[in-house]
Amino acid sequence: MVFRTNRRGPRPETPRQRPRVAPTDLARVDFHELVPEPVPFLGQAAYIQLEFFEGLAKAVATAPTLPSKEGLSAAAGVALRKHHALIAELRRLDVEPDDVMAPFAPATDRFRQATAGADWYELLLGIHITAGMLDSFFSRLAEGLPVELGARVRAILDEEGASVVLESELRSAIQGHPGLADRLALWGRSLVGDTLLVARSALSGADASVRTGEQVEPVFTELIADHTRRMDALGLTA
Amino acid sequence: MVFRTNRRGPRPETPRQRPRVAPTDLARVDFHELVPEPVPFLGQAAYIQLEFFEGLAKAVATAPTLPSKEGLSAAAGVALRKHHALIAELRRLDVEPDDVMAPFAPATDRFRQATAGADWYELLLGIHITAGMLDSFFSRLAEGLPVELGARVRAILDEEGASVVLESELRSAIQGHPGLADRLALWGRSLVGDTLLVARSALSGADASVRTGEQVEPVFTELIADHTRRMDALGLTA
Repeated sequence: MVFRTNRRGPRPETPRQRPRVAPTDLARVDFHELVPEPVPFLGQAAYIQLEFFEGLAKAVATAPTLPSKEGLSAAAGVALRKHHALIAELRRLDVEPDDVMAPFAPATDRFRQATAGADWYELLLGIHITAGMLDSFFSRLAEGLPVELGARVRAILDEEGASVVLESELRSAIQGHPGLADRLALWGRSLVGDTLLVARSALSGADASVRTGEQVEPVFTELIADHTRRMDALGLTA
Repeated sequence: MVFRTNRRGPRPETPRQRPRVAPTDLARVDFHELVPEPVPFLGQAAYIQLEFFEGLAKAVATAPTLPSKEGLSAAAGVALRKHHALIAELRRLDVEPDDVMAPFAPATDRFRQATAGADWYELLLGIHITAGMLDSFFSRLAEGLPVELGARVRAILDEEGASVVLESELRSAIQGHPGLADRLALWGRSLVGDTLLVARSALSGADASVRTGEQVEPVFTELIADHTRRMDALGLTA
Protein backbone atom coordinates (compact mmCIF):
# COMPACT_ATOMS: atom_id res chain seq x y z
CA MET A 1 0.00 0.00 0.00
CA VAL A 2 1.56 3.22 -1.16
CA PHE A 3 0.46 6.77 -1.37
CA ARG A 4 0.95 7.50 -5.02
CA THR A 5 2.04 11.06 -5.23
CA ASN A 6 3.13 11.24 -8.84
CA ARG A 7 -0.25 12.16 -10.23
CA ARG A 8 -1.06 14.87 -7.76
CA GLY A 9 -2.12 18.16 -9.20
CA PRO A 10 -2.64 21.31 -7.18
CA ARG A 11 -4.00 20.44 -3.77
CA PRO A 12 -6.34 22.30 -1.48
CA GLU A 13 -5.14 23.59 1.85
CA THR A 14 -6.49 20.63 3.84
CA PRO A 15 -4.80 18.25 4.18
CA ARG A 16 -1.44 19.33 2.88
CA GLN A 17 1.35 16.96 2.04
CA ARG A 18 4.36 17.22 4.25
CA PRO A 19 7.69 17.35 2.37
CA ARG A 20 8.93 13.79 2.08
CA VAL A 21 12.37 13.83 3.62
CA ALA A 22 13.24 10.18 3.79
CA PRO A 23 10.47 7.80 2.92
CA THR A 24 11.64 4.59 4.49
CA ASP A 25 8.75 2.25 3.99
CA LEU A 26 6.79 2.71 0.84
CA ALA A 27 4.89 -0.51 1.46
CA ARG A 28 2.84 1.01 4.31
CA VAL A 29 0.03 3.50 4.36
CA ASP A 30 1.82 6.46 5.82
CA PHE A 31 -0.65 8.76 7.46
CA HIS A 32 2.19 11.13 8.27
CA GLU A 33 2.04 12.27 4.68
CA LEU A 34 -1.44 13.61 5.29
CA VAL A 35 -1.21 16.82 7.24
CA PRO A 36 -4.64 17.85 8.45
CA GLU A 37 -5.34 21.40 9.49
CA PRO A 38 -5.70 21.08 13.27
CA VAL A 39 -8.75 23.29 13.71
CA PRO A 40 -11.17 21.72 11.20
CA PHE A 41 -9.79 18.29 12.02
CA LEU A 42 -10.62 18.77 15.70
CA GLY A 43 -13.97 20.35 14.89
CA GLN A 44 -15.10 17.46 12.74
CA ALA A 45 -13.74 14.83 15.14
CA ALA A 46 -15.41 16.55 18.11
CA TYR A 47 -18.77 16.83 16.40
CA ILE A 48 -18.64 13.19 15.32
CA GLN A 49 -18.09 12.19 18.96
CA LEU A 50 -21.12 14.26 19.95
CA GLU A 51 -23.15 12.29 17.42
CA PHE A 52 -21.83 9.01 18.81
CA PHE A 53 -22.81 10.23 22.25
CA GLU A 54 -26.33 11.03 21.08
CA GLY A 55 -26.63 7.61 19.49
CA LEU A 56 -25.39 5.90 22.64
CA ALA A 57 -27.72 7.98 24.81
CA LYS A 58 -30.61 6.83 22.64
CA ALA A 59 -29.36 3.27 23.09
CA VAL A 60 -29.37 3.81 26.88
CA ALA A 61 -32.91 5.20 26.84
CA THR A 62 -34.24 2.29 24.76
CA ALA A 63 -32.21 -0.54 26.27
CA PRO A 64 -34.34 -3.61 27.01
CA THR A 65 -32.69 -4.42 30.36
CA LEU A 66 -31.11 -2.52 33.21
CA PRO A 67 -27.67 -4.19 32.83
CA SER A 68 -27.63 -3.15 29.15
CA LYS A 69 -28.67 0.36 30.12
CA GLU A 70 -25.89 0.42 32.66
CA GLY A 71 -23.17 -0.77 30.29
CA LEU A 72 -24.28 1.59 27.55
CA SER A 73 -24.36 4.52 29.92
CA ALA A 74 -20.66 3.92 30.49
CA ALA A 75 -20.12 3.77 26.72
CA ALA A 76 -22.02 7.05 26.32
CA GLY A 77 -19.73 8.52 28.96
CA VAL A 78 -16.69 7.52 26.92
CA ALA A 79 -18.01 9.23 23.77
CA LEU A 80 -18.87 12.32 25.80
CA ARG A 81 -15.37 12.40 27.32
CA LYS A 82 -13.85 12.18 23.84
CA HIS A 83 -16.09 15.00 22.68
CA HIS A 84 -15.22 17.27 25.60
CA ALA A 85 -11.52 16.45 25.41
CA LEU A 86 -11.44 17.41 21.72
CA ILE A 87 -13.40 20.58 22.52
CA ALA A 88 -10.76 21.38 25.13
CA GLU A 89 -8.06 21.05 22.44
CA LEU A 90 -9.94 23.57 20.29
CA ARG A 91 -10.15 26.00 23.20
CA ARG A 92 -6.42 25.54 23.72
CA LEU A 93 -5.99 26.75 20.13
CA ASP A 94 -8.04 29.85 21.03
CA VAL A 95 -10.97 29.10 18.80
CA GLU A 96 -14.65 28.87 19.64
CA PRO A 97 -15.59 25.17 19.34
CA ASP A 98 -19.17 25.86 18.24
CA ASP A 99 -17.99 27.95 15.28
CA VAL A 100 -15.56 25.26 14.22
CA MET A 101 -18.01 22.39 14.58
CA ALA A 102 -20.97 24.11 12.92
CA PRO A 103 -19.91 23.48 9.28
CA PHE A 104 -19.72 19.75 9.98
CA ALA A 105 -23.11 19.52 11.65
CA PRO A 106 -25.44 19.04 8.66
CA ALA A 107 -23.50 16.20 7.01
CA THR A 108 -22.78 14.52 10.35
CA ASP A 109 -26.44 14.76 11.41
CA ARG A 110 -27.47 13.12 8.14
CA PHE A 111 -24.80 10.47 8.69
CA ARG A 112 -26.19 9.64 12.12
CA GLN A 113 -29.73 9.40 10.81
CA ALA A 114 -28.58 7.14 7.98
CA THR A 115 -26.77 4.82 10.38
CA ALA A 116 -29.27 4.79 13.27
CA GLY A 117 -31.02 1.63 12.06
CA ALA A 118 -34.52 0.31 12.47
CA ASP A 119 -34.29 -1.01 16.02
CA TRP A 120 -32.06 -1.17 19.09
CA TYR A 121 -29.79 -3.87 17.66
CA GLU A 122 -29.19 -1.98 14.44
CA LEU A 123 -28.60 1.18 16.44
CA LEU A 124 -25.92 -0.62 18.46
CA LEU A 125 -24.25 -2.12 15.41
CA GLY A 126 -24.45 1.23 13.63
CA ILE A 127 -22.52 2.93 16.42
CA HIS A 128 -20.09 0.04 16.84
CA ILE A 129 -19.19 -0.08 13.14
CA THR A 130 -19.11 3.63 12.38
CA ALA A 131 -17.38 4.68 15.62
CA GLY A 132 -14.93 1.81 15.20
CA MET A 133 -13.97 2.88 11.69
CA LEU A 134 -13.96 6.63 12.30
CA ASP A 135 -12.15 6.59 15.66
CA SER A 136 -9.46 4.48 14.10
CA PHE A 137 -9.36 6.65 11.00
CA PHE A 138 -9.18 9.97 12.85
CA SER A 139 -6.63 8.56 15.25
CA ARG A 140 -4.39 7.56 12.37
CA LEU A 141 -4.96 10.86 10.62
CA ALA A 142 -3.86 12.58 13.84
CA GLU A 143 -0.36 11.27 13.14
CA GLY A 144 -0.08 14.18 10.74
CA LEU A 145 -0.87 16.80 13.39
CA PRO A 146 1.86 18.65 15.27
CA VAL A 147 3.55 16.01 17.40
CA GLU A 148 2.26 16.85 20.89
CA LEU A 149 -1.25 17.67 19.77
CA GLY A 150 -1.29 14.53 17.67
CA ALA A 151 -0.26 12.38 20.63
CA ARG A 152 -2.97 13.87 22.84
CA VAL A 153 -5.63 13.45 20.16
CA ARG A 154 -4.64 9.83 19.59
CA ALA A 155 -4.82 9.15 23.31
CA ILE A 156 -8.31 10.67 23.36
CA LEU A 157 -9.61 8.74 20.38
CA ASP A 158 -8.00 5.43 21.27
CA GLU A 159 -9.97 5.00 24.51
CA GLU A 160 -11.72 1.72 23.82
CA GLY A 161 -14.35 1.40 26.53
CA ALA A 162 -17.36 1.96 24.29
CA SER A 163 -16.46 -0.67 21.69
CA VAL A 164 -15.96 -3.30 24.38
CA VAL A 165 -19.48 -2.69 25.71
CA LEU A 166 -21.04 -2.63 22.24
CA GLU A 167 -19.30 -5.80 21.14
CA SER A 168 -20.39 -7.60 24.27
CA GLU A 169 -24.02 -6.41 23.96
CA LEU A 170 -24.15 -7.32 20.27
CA ARG A 171 -22.58 -10.71 20.80
CA SER A 172 -25.10 -11.74 23.43
CA ALA A 173 -27.98 -10.33 21.36
CA ILE A 174 -26.86 -12.37 18.34
CA GLN A 175 -26.55 -15.49 20.46
CA GLY A 176 -29.99 -14.97 21.94
CA HIS A 177 -31.91 -14.14 18.76
CA PRO A 178 -31.68 -16.63 15.89
CA GLY A 179 -31.94 -14.83 12.59
CA LEU A 180 -30.56 -11.58 13.96
CA ALA A 181 -27.08 -12.36 12.63
CA ASP A 182 -28.24 -12.38 9.00
CA ARG A 183 -30.06 -9.10 9.35
CA LEU A 184 -27.15 -7.46 11.16
CA ALA A 185 -24.63 -8.75 8.61
CA LEU A 186 -26.59 -7.02 5.88
CA TRP A 187 -26.96 -3.87 7.96
CA GLY A 188 -23.25 -3.85 8.81
CA ARG A 189 -22.31 -4.01 5.14
CA SER A 190 -24.64 -1.16 4.30
CA LEU A 191 -22.92 1.12 6.83
CA VAL A 192 -19.55 1.09 5.09
CA GLY A 193 -20.36 3.44 2.24
CA ASP A 194 -21.66 6.27 4.41
CA THR A 195 -18.75 5.90 6.79
CA LEU A 196 -16.18 6.08 4.02
CA LEU A 197 -17.81 9.26 2.77
CA VAL A 198 -17.32 10.87 6.16
CA ALA A 199 -13.72 9.70 6.21
CA ARG A 200 -13.16 11.08 2.74
CA SER A 201 -14.61 14.43 3.73
CA ALA A 202 -12.02 14.59 6.52
CA LEU A 203 -9.22 13.84 4.05
CA SER A 204 -10.26 16.30 1.46
CA GLY A 205 -11.30 19.27 3.53
CA ALA A 206 -13.39 21.78 1.68
CA ASP A 207 -12.65 20.45 -1.79
CA ALA A 208 -13.80 16.86 -1.72
CA SER A 209 -13.35 16.27 -5.41
CA VAL A 210 -9.58 16.48 -5.40
CA ARG A 211 -8.51 13.58 -3.27
CA THR A 212 -10.83 10.83 -4.36
CA GLY A 213 -8.26 9.18 -6.59
CA GLU A 214 -5.82 6.38 -6.20
CA GLN A 215 -3.64 8.03 -3.59
CA VAL A 216 -6.24 7.63 -0.84
CA GLU A 217 -7.48 4.22 -1.91
CA PRO A 218 -5.07 2.34 0.40
CA VAL A 219 -6.41 4.29 3.37
CA PHE A 220 -9.89 3.09 2.58
CA THR A 221 -8.65 -0.44 1.96
CA GLU A 222 -7.24 -0.44 5.45
CA LEU A 223 -10.45 0.96 6.93
CA ILE A 224 -12.43 -1.80 5.25
CA ALA A 225 -10.03 -4.44 6.55
CA ASP A 226 -10.63 -3.04 10.06
CA HIS A 227 -14.34 -3.27 9.42
CA THR A 228 -14.07 -6.90 8.35
CA ARG A 229 -12.18 -7.78 11.52
CA ARG A 230 -14.85 -6.05 13.59
CA MET A 231 -17.65 -7.94 11.85
CA ASP A 232 -15.73 -11.24 12.15
CA ALA A 233 -15.41 -10.70 15.89
CA LEU A 234 -19.21 -10.70 16.05
CA GLY A 235 -19.50 -13.74 13.81
CA LEU A 236 -21.02 -11.61 11.06
CA THR A 237 -20.07 -11.92 7.41
CA ALA A 238 -18.70 -8.58 6.30
CA MET B 1 -39.48 23.37 61.76
CA VAL B 2 -39.28 20.36 63.97
CA PHE B 3 -39.43 16.67 63.46
CA ARG B 4 -42.28 15.73 65.68
CA THR B 5 -41.47 12.39 67.10
CA ASN B 6 -44.11 12.06 69.80
CA ARG B 7 -46.75 10.49 67.60
CA ARG B 8 -44.54 7.92 65.99
CA GLY B 9 -45.82 4.38 66.06
CA PRO B 10 -43.84 1.37 64.94
CA ARG B 11 -41.65 2.34 62.02
CA PRO B 12 -40.47 0.29 59.08
CA GLU B 13 -36.81 -0.54 58.63
CA THR B 14 -36.15 2.36 56.26
CA PRO B 15 -35.41 4.99 57.33
CA ARG B 16 -34.84 4.32 61.00
CA GLN B 17 -34.70 6.99 63.62
CA ARG B 18 -31.33 7.40 65.24
CA PRO B 19 -31.49 7.64 69.06
CA ARG B 20 -31.68 11.29 69.96
CA VAL B 21 -28.77 11.89 72.26
CA ALA B 22 -28.70 15.63 72.59
CA PRO B 23 -31.08 17.49 70.37
CA THR B 24 -29.61 20.96 70.38
CA ASP B 25 -31.73 22.78 67.87
CA LEU B 26 -35.32 21.74 67.68
CA ALA B 27 -36.11 24.63 65.38
CA ARG B 28 -34.31 23.09 62.41
CA VAL B 29 -35.16 20.21 60.17
CA ASP B 30 -32.60 17.70 61.29
CA PHE B 31 -31.98 15.19 58.57
CA HIS B 32 -29.61 13.36 60.90
CA GLU B 33 -32.67 11.89 62.54
CA LEU B 34 -33.52 10.11 59.33
CA VAL B 35 -31.22 7.16 58.89
CA PRO B 36 -31.60 5.75 55.42
CA GLU B 37 -30.49 2.24 54.61
CA PRO B 38 -27.38 2.83 52.50
CA VAL B 39 -28.08 0.23 49.80
CA PRO B 40 -31.61 1.20 48.74
CA PHE B 41 -30.76 4.87 49.27
CA LEU B 42 -27.85 4.60 46.83
CA GLY B 43 -29.86 2.46 44.41
CA GLN B 44 -32.69 4.96 44.19
CA ALA B 45 -30.38 7.96 44.01
CA ALA B 46 -28.28 6.28 41.29
CA TYR B 47 -31.29 5.36 39.19
CA ILE B 48 -32.69 8.87 39.48
CA GLN B 49 -29.41 10.27 38.16
CA LEU B 50 -29.63 7.87 35.22
CA GLU B 51 -33.06 9.30 34.46
CA PHE B 52 -31.73 12.84 34.67
CA PHE B 53 -28.98 11.79 32.30
CA GLU B 54 -31.52 10.40 29.83
CA GLY B 55 -33.56 13.57 30.02
CA LEU B 56 -30.48 15.72 29.46
CA ALA B 57 -29.32 13.52 26.58
CA LYS B 58 -32.73 14.03 24.98
CA ALA B 59 -32.30 17.77 25.54
CA VAL B 60 -28.91 17.57 23.79
CA ALA B 61 -30.35 15.68 20.83
CA THR B 62 -33.21 18.15 20.39
CA ALA B 63 -31.37 21.39 21.20
CA PRO B 64 -32.15 24.16 18.72
CA THR B 65 -28.59 25.50 18.50
CA LEU B 66 -25.09 24.10 18.71
CA PRO B 67 -24.09 26.23 21.74
CA SER B 68 -27.14 24.88 23.61
CA LYS B 69 -26.26 21.36 22.55
CA GLU B 70 -22.73 21.93 23.78
CA GLY B 71 -23.73 23.29 27.18
CA LEU B 72 -26.31 20.57 27.73
CA SER B 73 -23.83 17.87 26.79
CA ALA B 74 -21.71 19.05 29.70
CA ALA B 75 -24.79 18.95 31.95
CA ALA B 76 -25.52 15.40 30.76
CA GLY B 77 -21.94 14.53 31.65
CA VAL B 78 -22.48 15.78 35.20
CA ALA B 79 -25.59 13.62 35.69
CA LEU B 80 -23.76 10.64 34.24
CA ARG B 81 -20.81 11.19 36.59
CA LYS B 82 -23.18 11.32 39.55
CA HIS B 83 -24.82 8.12 38.39
CA HIS B 84 -21.53 6.27 37.96
CA ALA B 85 -20.11 7.60 41.21
CA LEU B 86 -23.18 6.34 43.12
CA ILE B 87 -22.90 3.00 41.31
CA ALA B 88 -19.28 2.83 42.46
CA GLU B 89 -20.44 3.31 46.05
CA LEU B 90 -22.83 0.38 45.65
CA ARG B 91 -20.01 -1.80 44.30
CA ARG B 92 -17.92 -0.76 47.28
CA LEU B 93 -20.68 -2.21 49.47
CA ASP B 94 -20.37 -5.47 47.53
CA VAL B 95 -23.80 -5.36 45.96
CA GLU B 96 -24.78 -5.59 42.31
CA PRO B 97 -26.03 -2.12 41.30
CA ASP B 98 -28.53 -3.43 38.75
CA ASP B 99 -30.26 -5.56 41.37
CA VAL B 100 -30.47 -2.66 43.77
CA MET B 101 -31.71 -0.16 41.20
CA ALA B 102 -34.27 -2.43 39.56
CA PRO B 103 -37.07 -1.97 42.15
CA PHE B 104 -36.91 1.80 41.66
CA ALA B 105 -37.04 1.65 37.87
CA PRO B 106 -40.81 1.54 37.21
CA ALA B 107 -41.76 4.47 39.44
CA THR B 108 -38.76 6.52 38.34
CA ASP B 109 -39.48 5.85 34.65
CA ARG B 110 -43.05 7.03 35.17
CA PHE B 111 -41.75 10.07 37.00
CA ARG B 112 -39.50 10.98 34.09
CA GLN B 113 -42.33 10.59 31.59
CA ALA B 114 -44.59 12.73 33.74
CA THR B 115 -41.99 15.49 33.98
CA ALA B 116 -40.63 15.42 30.41
CA GLY B 117 -42.96 18.15 29.18
CA ALA B 118 -44.41 18.98 25.80
CA ASP B 119 -41.38 20.62 24.20
CA TRP B 120 -37.71 21.37 24.67
CA TYR B 121 -38.30 24.25 27.11
CA GLU B 122 -40.57 22.20 29.34
CA LEU B 123 -38.08 19.36 29.17
CA LEU B 124 -35.33 21.68 30.41
CA LEU B 125 -37.46 23.14 33.19
CA GLY B 126 -38.61 19.65 34.15
CA ILE B 127 -35.03 18.52 34.66
CA HIS B 128 -33.98 21.76 36.34
CA ILE B 129 -36.81 21.67 38.87
CA THR B 130 -36.89 17.96 39.62
CA ALA B 131 -33.12 17.48 39.70
CA GLY B 132 -32.76 20.62 41.78
CA MET B 133 -35.25 19.40 44.38
CA LEU B 134 -34.15 15.77 44.43
CA ASP B 135 -30.39 16.36 44.42
CA SER B 136 -30.82 18.70 47.33
CA PHE B 137 -33.18 16.29 49.08
CA PHE B 138 -30.98 13.22 48.66
CA SER B 139 -27.91 15.19 49.62
CA ARG B 140 -29.55 16.26 52.87
CA LEU B 141 -30.87 12.76 53.48
CA ALA B 142 -27.28 11.52 53.06
CA GLU B 143 -26.49 13.27 56.37
CA GLY B 144 -28.02 10.22 58.01
CA LEU B 145 -25.68 7.76 56.29
CA PRO B 146 -22.50 6.51 57.97
CA VAL B 147 -20.24 9.54 58.19
CA GLU B 148 -17.66 8.83 55.48
CA LEU B 149 -20.14 7.39 53.02
CA GLY B 150 -22.45 10.31 53.68
CA ALA B 151 -19.71 12.84 53.00
CA ARG B 152 -18.80 11.15 49.72
CA VAL B 153 -22.42 10.95 48.61
CA ARG B 154 -23.02 14.60 49.43
CA ALA B 155 -19.93 15.59 47.43
CA ILE B 156 -21.27 13.57 44.50
CA LEU B 157 -24.76 15.03 44.61
CA ASP B 158 -23.72 18.61 45.31
CA GLU B 159 -21.86 19.03 41.99
CA GLU B 160 -23.75 21.95 40.52
CA GLY B 161 -22.65 22.12 36.88
CA ALA B 162 -25.91 20.94 35.38
CA SER B 163 -28.16 23.42 37.16
CA VAL B 164 -25.97 26.34 36.10
CA VAL B 165 -26.33 25.32 32.45
CA LEU B 166 -30.06 24.72 32.73
CA GLU B 167 -30.72 28.00 34.49
CA SER B 168 -28.73 29.89 31.88
CA GLU B 169 -30.50 28.18 28.97
CA LEU B 170 -33.91 28.71 30.52
CA ARG B 171 -33.24 32.32 31.34
CA SER B 172 -32.24 33.21 27.80
CA ALA B 173 -35.17 31.21 26.40
CA ILE B 174 -37.59 33.11 28.63
CA GLN B 175 -36.07 36.43 27.62
CA GLY B 176 -36.26 35.53 23.94
CA HIS B 177 -39.81 34.17 23.86
CA PRO B 178 -42.57 36.40 25.20
CA GLY B 179 -45.33 34.27 26.70
CA LEU B 180 -43.01 31.40 27.53
CA ALA B 181 -42.70 32.57 31.14
CA ASP B 182 -46.42 32.09 31.84
CA ARG B 183 -46.47 28.63 30.36
CA LEU B 184 -43.29 27.60 32.20
CA ALA B 185 -44.54 29.01 35.50
CA LEU B 186 -47.59 26.78 35.21
CA TRP B 187 -45.48 23.81 34.19
CA GLY B 188 -43.03 24.41 37.03
CA ARG B 189 -45.83 24.38 39.60
CA SER B 190 -47.22 21.16 38.20
CA LEU B 191 -43.88 19.38 38.71
CA VAL B 192 -43.84 19.76 42.47
CA GLY B 193 -46.37 17.07 43.33
CA ASP B 194 -44.65 14.29 41.40
CA THR B 195 -41.27 15.28 42.80
CA LEU B 196 -42.50 15.24 46.38
CA LEU B 197 -43.90 11.77 45.82
CA VAL B 198 -40.44 10.55 44.77
CA ALA B 199 -38.92 12.23 47.80
CA ARG B 200 -41.51 10.65 50.06
CA SER B 201 -40.80 7.22 48.62
CA ALA B 202 -37.15 7.70 49.58
CA LEU B 203 -38.14 8.60 53.12
CA SER B 204 -40.53 5.82 53.64
CA GLY B 205 -38.78 2.90 52.00
CA ALA B 206 -41.01 -0.03 51.30
CA ASP B 207 -43.87 1.07 53.49
CA ALA B 208 -44.91 4.42 52.12
CA SER B 209 -48.01 4.74 54.21
CA VAL B 210 -46.25 5.10 57.53
CA ARG B 211 -44.32 8.32 57.21
CA THR B 212 -46.73 10.59 55.45
CA GLY B 213 -47.76 12.39 58.60
CA GLU B 214 -46.70 15.55 60.30
CA GLN B 215 -43.17 14.47 61.13
CA VAL B 216 -42.00 14.76 57.52
CA GLU B 217 -43.99 17.82 56.63
CA PRO B 218 -41.15 20.24 57.49
CA VAL B 219 -38.87 18.39 55.08
CA PHE B 220 -41.32 18.99 52.31
CA THR B 221 -41.81 22.59 53.38
CA GLU B 222 -38.09 23.12 52.97
CA LEU B 223 -38.09 21.40 49.58
CA ILE B 224 -40.86 23.68 48.39
CA ALA B 225 -39.01 26.75 49.65
CA ASP B 226 -36.00 25.59 47.57
CA HIS B 227 -38.30 25.21 44.61
CA THR B 228 -39.65 28.73 45.05
CA ARG B 229 -36.12 30.14 45.13
CA ARG B 230 -35.29 28.24 41.94
CA MET B 231 -38.39 29.54 40.16
CA ASP B 232 -37.73 33.08 41.39
CA ALA B 233 -34.23 32.96 39.96
CA LEU B 234 -35.84 32.40 36.55
CA GLY B 235 -38.38 35.14 37.09
CA LEU B 236 -41.18 32.58 37.27
CA THR B 237 -44.00 32.69 39.80
CA ALA B 238 -43.84 29.51 41.82
